[in-house]
Amino acid sequence: MSDQPIIRQLKEGDAFQGFLLAQEAAYKVSAKGSEYLELKLADASGDLKAFLWDVRAVEGDMDAIRADVFLRVKGSVTSYNGRMQLKLDKARFAADVEVGDFSAFFPVSARPVPEMLAEMDGILLSVRDPWISRLLTALFLEDRDLRAAFALAPAAKSMHHAYLGGLLEHTLSILGMAERACGHYGALNRDLVVAGVFLHDVGKTAELSYQRSIGYTDAGNLVGHIALEAEWISRAVGNIPGFPEELRLQILHIVLSHHGRLEFGSPVLPKTPEALLVHYLDDLDGKLEVMFRAVKEEGGGGSWSPYNRALERMIYRVRWPKV
Amino acid sequence: MSDQPIIRQLKEGDAFQGFLLAQEAAYKVSAKGSEYLELKLADASGDLKAFLWDVRAVEGDMDAIRADVFLRVKGSVTSYNGRMQLKLDKARFAADVEVGDFSAFFPVSARPVPEMLAEMDGILLSVRDPWISRLLTALFLEDRDLRAAFALAPAAKSMHHAYLGGLLEHTLSILGMAERACGHYGALNRDLVVAGVFLHDVGKTAELSYQRSIGYTDAGNLVGHIALEAEWISRAVGNIPGFPEELRLQILHIVLSHHGRLEFGSPVLPKTPEALLVHYLDDLDGKLEVMFRAVKEEGGGGSWSPYNRALERMIYRVRWPKV
Amino acid sequence: MSDQPIIRQLKEGDAFQGFLLAQEAAYKVSAKGSEYLELKLADASGDLKAFLWDVRAVEGDMDAIRADVFLRVKGSVTSYNGRMQLKLDKARFAADVEVGDFSAFFPVSARPVPEMLAEMDGILLSVRDPWISRLLTALFLEDRDLRAAFALAPAAKSMHHAYLGGLLEHTLSILGMAERACGHYGALNRDLVVAGVFLHDVGKTAELSYQRSIGYTDAGNLVGHIALEAEWISRAVGNIPGFPEELRLQILHIVLSHHGRLEFGSPVLPKTPEALLVHYLDDLDGKLEVMFRAVKEEGGGGSWSPYNRALERMIYRVRWPKV
Amino acid sequence: MSDQPIIRQLKEGDAFQGFLLAQEAAYKVSAKGSEYLELKLADASGDLKAFLWDVRAVEGDMDAIRADVFLRVKGSVTSYNGRMQLKLDKARFAADVEVGDFSAFFPVSARPVPEMLAEMDGILLSVRDPWISRLLTALFLEDRDLRAAFALAPAAKSMHHAYLGGLLEHTLSILGMAERACGHYGALNRDLVVAGVFLHDVGKTAELSYQRSIGYTDAGNLVGHIALEAEWISRAVGNIPGFPEELRLQILHIVLSHHGRLEFGSPVLPKTPEALLVHYLDDLDGKLEVMFRAVKEEGGGGSWSPYNRALERMIYRVRWPKV
Amino acid sequence: MSDQPIIRQLKEGDAFQGFLLAQEAAYKVSAKGSEYLELKLADASGDLKAFLWDVRAVEGDMDAIRADVFLRVKGSVTSYNGRMQLKLDKARFAADVEVGDFSAFFPVSARPVPEMLAEMDGILLSVRDPWISRLLTALFLEDRDLRAAFALAPAAKSMHHAYLGGLLEHTLSILGMAERACGHYGALNRDLVVAGVFLHDVGKTAELSYQRSIGYTDAGNLVGHIALEAEWISRAVGNIPGFPEELRLQILHIVLSHHGRLEFGSPVLPKTPEALLVHYLDDLDGKLEVMFRAVKEEGGGGSWSPYNRALERMIYRVRWPKV
Amino acid sequence: MSDQPIIRQLKEGDAFQGFLLAQEAAYKVSAKGSEYLELKLADASGDLKAFLWDVRAVEGDMDAIRADVFLRVKGSVTSYNGRMQLKLDKARFAADVEVGDFSAFFPVSARPVPEMLAEMDGILLSVRDPWISRLLTALFLEDRDLRAAFALAPAAKSMHHAYLGGLLEHTLSILGMAERACGHYGALNRDLVVAGVFLHDVGKTAELSYQRSIGYTDAGNLVGHIALEAEWISRAVGNIPGFPEELRLQILHIVLSHHGRLEFGSPVLPKTPEALLVHYLDDLDGKLEVMFRAVKEEGGGGSWSPYNRALERMIYRVRWPKV
Repeated sequence: MSDQPIIRQLKEGDAFQGFLLAQEAAYKVSAKGSEYLELKLADASGDLKAFLWDVRAVEGDMDAIRADVFLRVKGSVTSYNGRMQLKLDKARFAADVEVGDFSAFFPVSARPVPEMLAEMDGILLSVRDPWISRLLTALFLEDRDLRAAFALAPAAKSMHHAYLGGLLEHTLSILGMAERACGHYGALNRDLVVAGVFLHDVGKTAELSYQRSIGYTDAGNLVGHIALEAEWISRAVGNIPGFPEELRLQILHIVLSHHGRLEFGSPVLPKTPEALLVHYLDDLDGKLEVMFRAVKEEGGGGSWSPYNRALERMIYRVRWPKV
Repeated sequence: MSDQPIIRQLKEGDAFQGFLLAQEAAYKVSAKGSEYLELKLADASGDLKAFLWDVRAVEGDMDAIRADVFLRVKGSVTSYNGRMQLKLDKARFAADVEVGDFSAFFPVSARPVPEMLAEMDGILLSVRDPWISRLLTALFLEDRDLRAAFALAPAAKSMHHAYLGGLLEHTLSILGMAERACGHYGALNRDLVVAGVFLHDVGKTAELSYQRSIGYTDAGNLVGHIALEAEWISRAVGNIPGFPEELRLQILHIVLSHHGRLEFGSPVLPKTPEALLVHYLDDLDGKLEVMFRAVKEEGGGGSWSPYNRALERMIYRVRWPKV
Repeated sequence: MSDQPIIRQLKEGDAFQGFLLAQEAAYKVSAKGSEYLELKLADASGDLKAFLWDVRAVEGDMDAIRADVFLRVKGSVTSYNGRMQLKLDKARFAADVEVGDFSAFFPVSARPVPEMLAEMDGILLSVRDPWISRLLTALFLEDRDLRAAFALAPAAKSMHHAYLGGLLEHTLSILGMAERACGHYGALNRDLVVAGVFLHDVGKTAELSYQRSIGYTDAGNLVGHIALEAEWISRAVGNIPGFPEELRLQILHIVLSHHGRLEFGSPVLPKTPEALLVHYLDDLDGKLEVMFRAVKEEGGGGSWSPYNRALERMIYRVRWPKV
Repeated sequence: MSDQPIIRQLKEGDAFQGFLLAQEAAYKVSAKGSEYLELKLADASGDLKAFLWDVRAVEGDMDAIRADVFLRVKGSVTSYNGRMQLKLDKARFAADVEVGDFSAFFPVSARPVPEMLAEMDGILLSVRDPWISRLLTALFLEDRDLRAAFALAPAAKSMHHAYLGGLLEHTLSILGMAERACGHYGALNRDLVVAGVFLHDVGKTAELSYQRSIGYTDAGNLVGHIALEAEWISRAVGNIPGFPEELRLQILHIVLSHHGRLEFGSPVLPKTPEALLVHYLDDLDGKLEVMFRAVKEEGGGGSWSPYNRALERMIYRVRWPKV
Repeated sequence: MSDQPIIRQLKEGDAFQGFLLAQEAAYKVSAKGSEYLELKLADASGDLKAFLWDVRAVEGDMDAIRADVFLRVKGSVTSYNGRMQLKLDKARFAADVEVGDFSAFFPVSARPVPEMLAEMDGILLSVRDPWISRLLTALFLEDRDLRAAFALAPAAKSMHHAYLGGLLEHTLSILGMAERACGHYGALNRDLVVAGVFLHDVGKTAELSYQRSIGYTDAGNLVGHIALEAEWISRAVGNIPGFPEELRLQILHIVLSHHGRLEFGSPVLPKTPEALLVHYLDDLDGKLEVMFRAVKEEGGGGSWSPYNRALERMIYRVRWPKV
Repeated sequence: MSDQPIIRQLKEGDAFQGFLLAQEAAYKVSAKGSEYLELKLADASGDLKAFLWDVRAVEGDMDAIRADVFLRVKGSVTSYNGRMQLKLDKARFAADVEVGDFSAFFPVSARPVPEMLAEMDGILLSVRDPWISRLLTALFLEDRDLRAAFALAPAAKSMHHAYLGGLLEHTLSILGMAERACGHYGALNRDLVVAGVFLHDVGKTAELSYQRSIGYTDAGNLVGHIALEAEWISRAVGNIPGFPEELRLQILHIVLSHHGRLEFGSPVLPKTPEALLVHYLDDLDGKLEVMFRAVKEEGGGGSWSPYNRALERMIYRVRWPKV
């Protein structure tokens, strides 16, 4: 989509031609009895409603137009009541290969992936415990598929960091805090904490599907990311001759217990200081991300965000200024 | 302990000489200031309090006498207030090798283990799905260590079937009900159910320690039986080339969800009919075992059992007679 | 409605004339300001939206057209966006007597009622305990009103078996499993279990209203089916001279405790093996019915059912094939 | 026990001869190996520990001496560390007929029963609704057994008003508040409220056993007082020809819902103003009785009562004085 | 709005000209693509939908027309499907000063405020404890701002007494019951109870905003009414030299604990009889108000109210008539 | 107690003469009928059982010997079963003034108080926001009583940091982590966080009594530390002319919400990033202290701590060694 305009910059009266992702698509019938096509179209910068009032203007297979496919559309921007819409003259299904670079169509992390990968590699190199180093190296440096998926996946379906690259961004943020916490609480085993943070959500790469919209895979629904990553850890450990069973148990324990409570899906409670720390820092990082986003976003009433379902409360947006 | 009397048959005035398991052992001081040894001694038939009023009669290392070791004792049965006690003349630590057959000292299943193994093998042979058959065969027929442990382990620390052989007895009982349920609900996949039942608690063999008294292992406390068996299944599946991923997920799902609710330690809820069935039959079988045992046991007030902590209620023992 | 077409078989362009049940009915105003009638019309085979665009075409009393009455309508089948609708030319209220056989208009059990009644009678005859036999006979064979209601009622408002005949179908299914369970757990009193299953939901005949749509009666909302059936049992027992009080208590206990937990509306917990069994088999049967229906039904995304409110989860529809 | 001293007035050095209720009784063995009898003996004024140091001084059947029987004892009052004890010279089992007036041995309401019955009858006569009047008359005036039991029973096993006459005292106290509440909230139906209060705990007469110590009957454990009283109401209503079904449902609803929440054993929630009021006044009266008793009783630390299990908190005993 | 018609008395065909409060306001686009204004307009007697089909008829700033402002409108009453609507010819924003008496536009207590204030003052004068009297006098008689706010505020955002004057009406109603309760339970300190009732919700005057629609203030969301009133009490006490600390704690305790449970926002549980009473009477009064209102209001199905979110149940509206 | 031996260093056979704190004291009667005094005596290094077998050896007022007073004792160390005891020859009550330096008798923070106060003052000086600086200065530098209490108080009765100086140590530890967190999450207002941490538990100085043993004050039980500190903040703010109301609300919000959930005693949920952070760091610090202590302490079985009531789990003590 090299030269098409991006949604956030459209103004009333602009013409538009290009590819957009159909997040929603439905054929409806107007009160007058005529059929029309109602769409929600998106690129990475935003989304807007679009209407094709005469379905005969659909080119090609009408049924191919549905949620989570790309469309090629042509139309112009109109504005009703302050909200912009696209009034379409034409629309057709577009195959993925036509579209090229997908990343232009999905919300992504504000941090560039290469920068984040470099930071991750630096942390991996800083691990001094040889067994932990070999385990993390096997998974995050040598397993190219996992590394690629880890750099792409979101951290959650909707709760927090729900965008491409979100898993890596979230993991790095916890690692930063974990480093600081290990400086403060000197009795913590820093390399064990680092292992726990790296591994605690790695199963999200298989729990979630995130090629078009973020959802759960069958394995995600049937097994869940916690059991998936426990399996991967044990398999990787099995490929490292002599890996200490004690260490394997300690790492598995951090991963299995990181949701902190049974009713949140952890089959065991955190029973070591490292497991407790990883649980708290993970939980804190996710909730702070939600709060900071709520402070910045529009909507809601004045100084309060709309009711936030992830936190089950409204967020207070007024910031007491720093001196 | 070939020829020593068993505890349940002792009468007041009997002499006793032989080996007994010390379930509790403590040196105490009487009101007069003299030290004595207070014990709870057991064989498989029961237990009774024992006292050695003069600790100078302890032979050998006094500190070796502690909970979960065997003792060689000599004394006589006395009775106070209707309860029998052993008044000891002598006591000494006894090494395991002296004792010989341990099974005489622990509560065991009422069903002979060979009979149960034969029944198990019959069910294994009845599985027609080739992949399921190979998976179960690898674990329960070919893995001699697991097979041996599976025949020895209790089903729980204290909640139900808390005796040697209890895991196998519990598993077979559920299998019996599962067979019947599959006859009734024709849409169920019987072989999948059989796999789920066989595997749902197999991790107890490593979660629990049960050489002397039943407790939790480190792996049991840190990882838990559900994650342990998920790991074993994936490893065994990895050794069967071509094993279908769909089937692996379905089996893992039954195992991971079999506690039925997140707050009971299952990281996912049962989402297939087979998973739902295994959860219900497992739960029912454990609770019925508790109830039938409570109906039979002594103690409590008349028609009611003592308060049962596993079920959080008293059990009504009056049985309406069958016609 | 002997010769009118059934909804499931209608095709676009078909003319339709006949009786249909109005599940929803509302006069609305179009964007152009004209009033129209929007309906949801149903027979036992399904339902579809219907519109009468000119309310002057309503014959007779406009206010008589409301939810849960029959209408006589005439129109033709149109199709918008793949969904069929009825475009009506005429509509009028129809009295019940015009309609004749109601069963053509409501969802009913897939099993014929006479077949189910015969199965029920066979089970009643198999009870050997004379007191239980007399109690069940009095209620299910001799009380013609209750027998008729028991054959007609649904098992629930919406959770499971929510169709005419559902209560009988659900009861028979549990009885089948109960018979098997009593074969497996030999210590259970089979006749007591049979009594418990027969009686556990009989109060639904008065808790629910199910002449048109399924809802709660005043007695259902104020008293609930559990208290209703406890009352009926005591009254029936009062008419059997010499009925043992012990047996009355045991039966009442099964009925009162069959929801298994206080927070689900049982005033006591199951404290006998028979009460525990009835609770589990009832719960299992209802949930399996929901699951099997979800596996079969349309809607939702691919291998997963839509979110199911009764089970608070999505159901996995992929079935591992039997060999 | 006309002329024997009462426990609360005993002083060190007093001789004692007479009947006492054995609340606890156990044969024990001293550190010196001799058997003795340890008792907790009570009359209505209090209880104290008693010891018979030589069991050969027990007259008659030693095994007859157990909890909840009367004993005839002779001994003298000694004092250890500020607490009085009975040092017994003799003790023997005493049949109930020897003892005569039981009420001297159990905690009873501070209000005389005849006075309470007179107050109750006055309230019964004030009911103007003819149907409610006939129902209450049938149960509380004409059913002599129920009337007698209602005057004798405690209100609970241990939570509140746990003494003979406590049920009547509790009921009258709620009635007093209910009268006031109906004066305040004019829309309430006072006679319906009165019926609800009278009936809400009447089943306690059969749920609890209270001849010697307070416990649960089999019916209490299996069925519970709520279902018992629902049954009694329906039976009594069945004996009043023409009793309105609407009124029967409203009364049953108050009784069934009076615990206020499902998890507290009510199968339905209060859905009428009268049911809501009865729930609140019942709950309030029970908890206030607990608080006022805690304020008055000894024990605990200074201004705070010991931890109260019924209320799950300590009670503050400091009273701000009235002006 | 001296002479304009009130909404509840409008009939089809009536012309309307005057001020109304816009509870909802949105510019929308019709199926034909033209923009219109959809409103919900209210005065104290009720509300109704209104449409201005041609937005060019809006006078002045279109963006000034939004929720919670007054409008000056002109139009006529039409009726669609039994519901009245306003078809507007003109609409414009109206400044508050134009409108005059706000009370004509909001739901208010059925009791006149002066009458309620007089009743309140009478109760204040009846307090005999000098310290309590001075505290309440300082807050409710001498603090004119608080007194004015106390007379204006609603008791809650939506749960109960959600109208202007509701806080005062609710407080007086509890005071009436409290007076009666202190007559019944003689050990209660009446003046302490009166203080607790007066103060328990006084913080709602600052927790809620209620100039236009009822909502939460920032302080309400960040601090809550319980902490606000604790602060006010301590400040007022600080201005009364010699005020006893014991009394301050007892009053604070009633206020802090009056929600009765931690999960309802009370940081401490009621631990004195007075605190327990205030909690129960407050809770009862709020819930009874909800019930009596539900009994009177329209909507829902026949004898049952619609599902009530505050009480999480439907209310039974059938009243058994008083004799 | 300048030159008396400390408990931890006593050996069997040692003579002892000096002051000790009586944590428990009871006169008991031996099986032989003679009265003796049983004590638990402590200094800051530990505690041990003590017995005075002949109460006639008590000097002075026997009743003055009770829990939480000092005693002057003389005796010798004996050993039974590996546990040391004091066999006393003499004991008498000792007035506080005799004892001198109390700190020798209570568990205290491992960090010297002056060092901690210096660290605290450094942090106070680092606050740049002038309003926050003045508030904290007023409370923690200028209010000498509060400063002294803040340096002495424990952080909790038993959950964590339950020793003298524990509150200050806990506060400083959180401040250390908070500083690091503000470095990591740049959007946080560091001075606001510092204020929140300083103030979040300051009310513990009045909630707890900690002169002898740690308990709750009346104000602690009736009002709680959260409401106490809210009051103090508002009072201190009231003494700073011009203090911004917005800032007051933000600080109060952090303090009121720092328990994180209503059921843990916070009347509001954290709704700002700073409030969320303070809650998490406070919770984490307390739980880590518990864990690290459990790792170090004796008792329990091997690699596991005893069941920890504060965390509701056992703690795994095996530490994976740092490289």
